[in-house]
Amino acid sequence: MRIRLDLSYDGTDFRGWATQPDFRTVQGSLEDAIAMALRIPLVRVVCAGRTDTGVHARGQVVHFDVDRADVAASAGRSRGPALDALVRRLNGILDGDVRVRRATEAEPGFDARFSALWRRYAYRIADRPELIDPLTRRHVLAWERRLDVGLMNAGAEHLIGLQDFAAYCKRREGATTVRTLLAFEWTRTPHGLIEGRVVADAFCHTMVRSLVGCLLIVGEGRRPPPWAAEVLSGRVRDASMTVVHARGLTLEEVGYPDADELAAQAVRTRARRTAE
Amino acid sequence: MRIRLDLSYDGTDFRGWATQPDFRTVQGSLEDAIAMALRIPLVRVVCAGRTDTGVHARGQVVHFDVDRADVAASAGRSRGPALDALVRRLNGILDGDVRVRRATEAEPGFDARFSALWRRYAYRIADRPELIDPLTRRHVLAWERRLDVGLMNAGAEHLIGLQDFAAYCKRREGATTVRTLLAFEWTRTPHGLIEGRVVADAFCHTMVRSLVGCLLIVGEGRRPPPWAAEVLSGRVRDASMTVVHARGLTLEEVGYPDADELAAQAVRTRARRTAE
Repeated sequence: MRIRLDLSYDGTDFRGWATQPDFRTVQGSLEDAIAMALRIPLVRVVCAGRTDTGVHARGQVVHFDVDRADVAASAGRSRGPALDALVRRLNGILDGDVRVRRATEAEPGFDARFSALWRRYAYRIADRPELIDPLTRRHVLAWERRLDVGLMNAGAEHLIGLQDFAAYCKRREGATTVRTLLAFEWTRTPHGLIEGRVVADAFCHTMVRSLVGCLLIVGEGRRPPPWAAEVLSGRVRDASMTVVHARGLTLEEVGYPDADELAAQAVRTRARRTAE
Repeated sequence: MRIRLDLSYDGTDFRGWATQPDFRTVQGSLEDAIAMALRIPLVRVVCAGRTDTGVHARGQVVHFDVDRADVAASAGRSRGPALDALVRRLNGILDGDVRVRRATEAEPGFDARFSALWRRYAYRIADRPELIDPLTRRHVLAWERRLDVGLMNAGAEHLIGLQDFAAYCKRREGATTVRTLLAFEWTRTPHGLIEGRVVADAFCHTMVRSLVGCLLIVGEGRRPPPWAAEVLSGRVRDASMTVVHARGLTLEEVGYPDADELAAQAVRTRARRTAE
């Protein structure tokens, strides 16, 4: 059977998602916990969005395959459905900075990575000293200069649509950098924080943080909004642009099609992208 | 001159407010930072609410007295007003889990502790596993059983007003336990968390956490709402009642009267309370 897990984590103390020898990673911690909870050898989990070092998640989705008998056996005589027992066991094993929110049996054809239709990230910024809150400092970036949300939105509009985001991506051999940016909006929350919401079919490596880095320059008034498009059309990284800090970035949600479309979507995605 | 500081902190890694030898406390860290920023010997700061180990603050208020010349000298050639420079220097010295939000010259008669009219605390609870968010785990309590907000509000109503809160306080020799509870309400936030808002002229030691502990028992349905009043009238601690964990508690705001009432309010408070 294939199990889908929905999880959240505070990325501060992880060396990113992907397992690395000698480093604490989210994937590594989760795979160890699954093996321990189900008393099975190590399984590989596949995730919807491979977050970088320091990036957080509230809506990460993963899948892994396991024998139904192992799940039943591990639940033993615990109350309620076996997958609820698995959630409790995993959260008992994992440290407090990763939480499994839900475990469900995946629909046929479900693939956490390839069935996904879109990923939604949020980027949070405190651009005035009095907004800096020690209680949220791990996931809100402190920015020294005031930002103009109107300018940032004007810049973001230039990036929407099906585009080659090579200028905003860390290049990987043989991987396409064409993506569809579905939404990119900035708002000031009632508390005064700036919140960016960015949705795409998928993101290439460091893409969100490069897009945000560009709009910080626009938001400070150092470049006009159309500069975001100029960078894009240049198809090369601009030296004045920076990849903004991971701290403010959270993977909020991953969208999937209805059950009958899961397998077809996975086929389409695989065909379009050699690798992400 | 008397300076008022408004500050926020994540109480997780502090041994409470009050300076203690060999322990990291908020007061100790702040007093060290002030001495270093102004290049003066250690000064004592007075706060509005002496928070316990693990309790957080978003709206803590303190005052301290200092020579005007020392403030001007420390600002040196930095841009802007001397007190803005002091905020920058303090935040440069302090660790990220305490932030000075504002420094202002206090109005005549201002006393952070005795001029205060009221203190407002919030208590935050996640009562379902799927609400537990690693990004807020340091200031939201995870509670294993579902809570009924209606029952909690019914119980809270029994506690409003001028009362002897001895049953909810850790006794201190010679200190009165009579307080005026001005408001105590529970709501479920749009995210599903439970948030308690409690306002009183002042709180005695462990009072907020005992009040919340009582209402958790009521919210689980283990005791009916009037039990909150029964405990109160008993004037002794009930063995079944517990002081709830500090993690969920945040001092949100301290209220002061208008400038012309500050000194008179301090006189009234001192007369009423031998010690807090």
